[in-house]
Amino acid sequence: MNNSNGGLRARDLGIPFDGETGIYNAITDVAGVTVGHTTLIEGDGPLKVGKGPIRTGVTVILPRGPHYDPVFAGWYALNGNGEMTGTTWLEESGFLEGVIALTNTHSVGATWDAVAAWQIERGFFDTAAGAYWLLPVVAETYDGSLNDINGFHVKREHVFAALDGAVSGPVHEGCVGGGTGMRCHEFKGGIGTSSRKLTAAGESYNVGVLVQANHGRRRELTIAGVPVGKEIADVMPVYNRQPAPEPGAGSIIVIVATDAPLLPHQLKRLARRVPLGMARVGGIGNQTSGDIFLAFSTANAGMAHHSGPAELRMISNDDIDPLFEAAVQATEEAIINALVAATTMVGINGNTVYALPHDRLQDALRHYNRL
Amino acid sequence: MNNSNGGLRARDLGIPFDGETGIYNAITDVAGVTVGHTTLIEGDGPLKVGKGPIRTGVTVILPRGPHYDPVFAGWYALNGNGEMTGTTWLEESGFLEGVIALTNTHSVGATWDAVAAWQIERGFFDTAAGAYWLLPVVAETYDGSLNDINGFHVKREHVFAALDGAVSGPVHEGCVGGGTGMRCHEFKGGIGTSSRKLTAAGESYNVGVLVQANHGRRRELTIAGVPVGKEIADVMPVYNRQPAPEPGAGSIIVIVATDAPLLPHQLKRLARRVPLGMARVGGIGNQTSGDIFLAFSTANAGMAHHSGPAELRMISNDDIDPLFEAAVQATEEAIINALVAATTMVGINGNTVYALPHDRLQDALRHYNRL
Amino acid sequence: MNNSNGGLRARDLGIPFDGETGIYNAITDVAGVTVGHTTLIEGDGPLKVGKGPIRTGVTVILPRGPHYDPVFAGWYALNGNGEMTGTTWLEESGFLEGVIALTNTHSVGATWDAVAAWQIERGFFDTAAGAYWLLPVVAETYDGSLNDINGFHVKREHVFAALDGAVSGPVHEGCVGGGTGMRCHEFKGGIGTSSRKLTAAGESYNVGVLVQANHGRRRELTIAGVPVGKEIADVMPVYNRQPAPEPGAGSIIVIVATDAPLLPHQLKRLARRVPLGMARVGGIGNQTSGDIFLAFSTANAGMAHHSGPAELRMISNDDIDPLFEAAVQATEEAIINALVAATTMVGINGNTVYALPHDRLQDALRHYNRL
Amino acid sequence: MNNSNGGLRARDLGIPFDGETGIYNAITDVAGVTVGHTTLIEGDGPLKVGKGPIRTGVTVILPRGPHYDPVFAGWYALNGNGEMTGTTWLEESGFLEGVIALTNTHSVGATWDAVAAWQIERGFFDTAAGAYWLLPVVAETYDGSLNDINGFHVKREHVFAALDGAVSGPVHEGCVGGGTGMRCHEFKGGIGTSSRKLTAAGESYNVGVLVQANHGRRRELTIAGVPVGKEIADVMPVYNRQPAPEPGAGSIIVIVATDAPLLPHQLKRLARRVPLGMARVGGIGNQTSGDIFLAFSTANAGMAHHSGPAELRMISNDDIDPLFEAAVQATEEAIINALVAATTMVGINGNTVYALPHDRLQDALRHYNRL
Repeated sequence: MNNSNGGLRARDLGIPFDGETGIYNAITDVAGVTVGHTTLIEGDGPLKVGKGPIRTGVTVILPRGPHYDPVFAGWYALNGNGEMTGTTWLEESGFLEGVIALTNTHSVGATWDAVAAWQIERGFFDTAAGAYWLLPVVAETYDGSLNDINGFHVKREHVFAALDGAVSGPVHEGCVGGGTGMRCHEFKGGIGTSSRKLTAAGESYNVGVLVQANHGRRRELTIAGVPVGKEIADVMPVYNRQPAPEPGAGSIIVIVATDAPLLPHQLKRLARRVPLGMARVGGIGNQTSGDIFLAFSTANAGMAHHSGPAELRMISNDDIDPLFEAAVQATEEAIINALVAATTMVGINGNTVYALPHDRLQDALRHYNRL
Repeated sequence: MNNSNGGLRARDLGIPFDGETGIYNAITDVAGVTVGHTTLIEGDGPLKVGKGPIRTGVTVILPRGPHYDPVFAGWYALNGNGEMTGTTWLEESGFLEGVIALTNTHSVGATWDAVAAWQIERGFFDTAAGAYWLLPVVAETYDGSLNDINGFHVKREHVFAALDGAVSGPVHEGCVGGGTGMRCHEFKGGIGTSSRKLTAAGESYNVGVLVQANHGRRRELTIAGVPVGKEIADVMPVYNRQPAPEPGAGSIIVIVATDAPLLPHQLKRLARRVPLGMARVGGIGNQTSGDIFLAFSTANAGMAHHSGPAELRMISNDDIDPLFEAAVQATEEAIINALVAATTMVGINGNTVYALPHDRLQDALRHYNRL
Repeated sequence: MNNSNGGLRARDLGIPFDGETGIYNAITDVAGVTVGHTTLIEGDGPLKVGKGPIRTGVTVILPRGPHYDPVFAGWYALNGNGEMTGTTWLEESGFLEGVIALTNTHSVGATWDAVAAWQIERGFFDTAAGAYWLLPVVAETYDGSLNDINGFHVKREHVFAALDGAVSGPVHEGCVGGGTGMRCHEFKGGIGTSSRKLTAAGESYNVGVLVQANHGRRRELTIAGVPVGKEIADVMPVYNRQPAPEPGAGSIIVIVATDAPLLPHQLKRLARRVPLGMARVGGIGNQTSGDIFLAFSTANAGMAHHSGPAELRMISNDDIDPLFEAAVQATEEAIINALVAATTMVGINGNTVYALPHDRLQDALRHYNRL
Repeated sequence: MNNSNGGLRARDLGIPFDGETGIYNAITDVAGVTVGHTTLIEGDGPLKVGKGPIRTGVTVILPRGPHYDPVFAGWYALNGNGEMTGTTWLEESGFLEGVIALTNTHSVGATWDAVAAWQIERGFFDTAAGAYWLLPVVAETYDGSLNDINGFHVKREHVFAALDGAVSGPVHEGCVGGGTGMRCHEFKGGIGTSSRKLTAAGESYNVGVLVQANHGRRRELTIAGVPVGKEIADVMPVYNRQPAPEPGAGSIIVIVATDAPLLPHQLKRLARRVPLGMARVGGIGNQTSGDIFLAFSTANAGMAHHSGPAELRMISNDDIDPLFEAAVQATEEAIINALVAATTMVGINGNTVYALPHDRLQDALRHYNRL
């Protein structure tokens, strides 16, 4: 099975977007952020719980790479039919203290366990710094229509591999990592990323977004204002046997990174803008969707456990609009990048979810004079 | 000054929308809901604080008309640079106990006072029912670029008139009531409304939306997926003197009504969908915008102060998606209705905010093959 | 009517407390904070709505005195059966932009209007600083069992007088300002204040609390761990005619000030500790109570509308416990100060609410070996 | 090691409490609720990570026993330095869909995984009922000063045993289940429970509370208003080697159950009362404490996935005070029950946490005339 799409991205197809991207057009345009994937694809045929077929994985994001130094953070759920562990402490403290891991729903426990173990084994957490306990951030979306989700196939070594292999630079998209078995607007979905460069308060900043997109109904899919979902209503998933999820079932996890010096309450504001980017692609936050968003800032390093009052920088609220705009735009583009990069996948019971056909997409854009 | 636009609405111009509207395509399609406006337009020329020119008013919504019977309710703020009083008790109790009033920012105090006085004088609140104190819901947007906002021109009698005159049926839109002096995406804005009929859990329900739209930047204005703001970038407001607000300064208040039996936490979910409708028209929730939303249900009458356990009905979460979709669609259309209905207005210092030109709008829609 | 109690405070009666107070044992121990009261007591006999008797007023707190310079702030409601306007923007922005006013429930509108007008007339808000609109913070508790609350007796001039007269130094307590007609644990209540000095992160800070206490049932009243409410169960209010409120009906507004450099999310944490101080005095957050709390920090002056990234200081979360402890202790003492300072009051219809008898209180403390 | 205390409970020592308990004075007084514990105590001597000594376990609560039927629920965190998974969906849906598990901090992952597996293997979740994915509720407190917490000793079989063995009736307290290695106000803590019977709206209801208590500083410990912590300041834990936690480090998880028909927003109100019960015992919600509370109602069975509008019952807000009072009282008593039941424990590195000495406690109560 080929889980590549020739590396094509939304802009390669001529889809118009607003704003200027960073170098990689990825979350890694925020300096220090690293991303790792472990992709698990194995077996074909009928579902045998515990034996496969396997179409899943894990994606990790390390806000400052493999260094323990909490980042200010905020979060928001448009529709909380999902899990993101660690948010209670994030909300209380204003900090994200460790790494972020994205996986399938039923692998949250194993991934949590693995992230904790990795942070202990690698010395990531240092009790000398006052860190006695770990409250990992693990989020999920449901891949059970392609993957043997009740087989609990994500193991400690898979999470370790993703964490140890996390790098900066270009980010693989589509059917990789936690996004391997995901669907988006009833096309094949998965991991997507994008970024924006912007000027706020006279300084240059970056906003990067990474999505694990597994949400949305076909009929609402919109790209560059074009009703693509209605134009390509015929290329639908084939579910040979149960479980056949409701249209719209699924979830989207969105991670927003920035190097602008935002405080926790300002990062929550950034997270609240994610639905506006989703909506441009047609999402309505379905009942069965876990639409959960986390935003963090890599500015203000070394402040979390500072001894004595720490000196910080903060963007004035008056200067924050360009950051909001960037988050909306990068979210929109990251979702479309996930759709464009993903390839058709056959999973359990021969269930098949088709990739968004690039030619049909371009036809639709042309029909509405957007190409 | 003509504050009518020939009664034209978005659909009259051929703008395509999804979903089926109710009879009036208005919040009043939810049975029992009444709406009243008092519009204050007086004077021309330079601003003389306390003397005008006046371009303001008040709009009221009575969930069950002039009868005291709390409705379940929930609220959400996308960007809280504004005021909606009464939300603390609404959140705690799950009920909206009285009426809703929308006005300009600096008339919140006078309007609050007037709503309380009206509820006392009209016997709306009945201490026999256990209501000792009043916690009115008053929300606002800023009209100070057209209106002498520091003149505090909304008086008790204006609020009483709106409340006493509230009716069901068609709702005036555009430069009326609380929306009189408002701007939207740097065109003239104001009051707009829309509704959807839907089927959920095998039963027929209505969702109605009313907006006081005073938000958004031109360059993001999108209608039916068409970048209208970029296509009509030349028809900009003229501000002869300060205060000239930032582009995007302003706010939007959105009230969502339904007759579906939703509980308070479900109504909060409905309110959280409003940004998705806003985003379809291009809103990003600017820093200077008070984007505050309230949703209520007229089902389950007579339950708020029931003696002994009350019997209620509730839509299962599993059946809630059609209501979410309706809220998104009706919000989108209500904003566009406000834009279409509003007429060019000259206010303080000759500041002029132009109406969205219908012909230019239709040209743009045609250019992108949406008409 | 004598609305003084000889200036006695809780410590004068020998009640034991933990922690070290500031100079005034008042919210004004936080440098820059000023407090003003206008007390309205007029008439006797039967209630004539609009004519009295009047037992009400307004109390104002200016975080930095009469100077426009927003302070970081956070808020929390234990039980939101009440109003505190302005919290939506406070939550969003992280700032309290103006003054705080406390009054009776039905005077919220007039007080809001007056605070806005005062800020405009006194030039407190400066549009040059980007402040176009005002979102005042006005909170309330219900004094309708002693005061002609539906007479709307608080007028613009009363609010102006409180604001213009606000000073630092000792704060009047008991039946003054917004607390004039209030009840607490079914004794006479009103305004109380207290403070704590503390060391955190090696630096010295102050926490000051001011309460408008109008909450609680007798049977739960506890002072220094002693079940005072059960020991003095015979001295109960006399309500000659309706409205006779439910025991526990009422509310408590608590304002917490500090000079420690806390960020908005840390100030919300401080506000969440207020119920722990209330609980020491026996409060349970009754259904009919509006228990709403706001915390602000006077550190980090001049940062709200800073042009370009602002430099801030922040206490590490690791160092925050002494501030939590101080807030709990000062809340406890401020409530008891309100009870000790308040004097018996006769209001509408001859309704009478008795002061906590000092001798009986001391007897009870002695009985339980706390004196 | 004897992890029993002769079955003594707070009332056996004569400690005075308000309110009437249910039959078991336990969370199981709410009909249908079952509780199971697995206690792991093994080894002595120096800490060898992965090898012990082991002082930990897991406690489970099944709201309706081993039957899939979601219960309405709400939650609140006083101080979120901890984890309770599943709260995002609980908040969104208003339902707790499965079981609750309490364990040590670093076993959250393994326990989550085990709870998911148990629900799948036991057929607890039924995809026919629309349940495709599992979002377990797992909460934790930190036992790393007695237990080899980084050894991840809680395994799938331990969680299965607790779930399979859950029963109604009396509940073991003290050093059992998830509470095995916990400390409370620097005495030995652990599991405690209590209940109240009450009348609301003319009907009889029960409120039951279960705590996993691992929080608090000695100097604030208060029992029946008596400053017990100051009176027994000499019996302190002995930490031979690192990690020696800060005083106050720790957490408390509180589960509140009721058979009264409360809606989700009302259950959140119940959860917000838990701090008031904690405060009576002296808690201040320390920075390092994860004080997280969940309340659920067993009324309204069968409604979560009802086809078509469901018929519900609801207690009026006007009738809710007795439930608030019961939650406060039962929380207070459950914490003290945990303290009274727990026995002195020696753990890793010989670290020793002493039980609250009953005789000293009674002496202190007598000294303050409370016995």
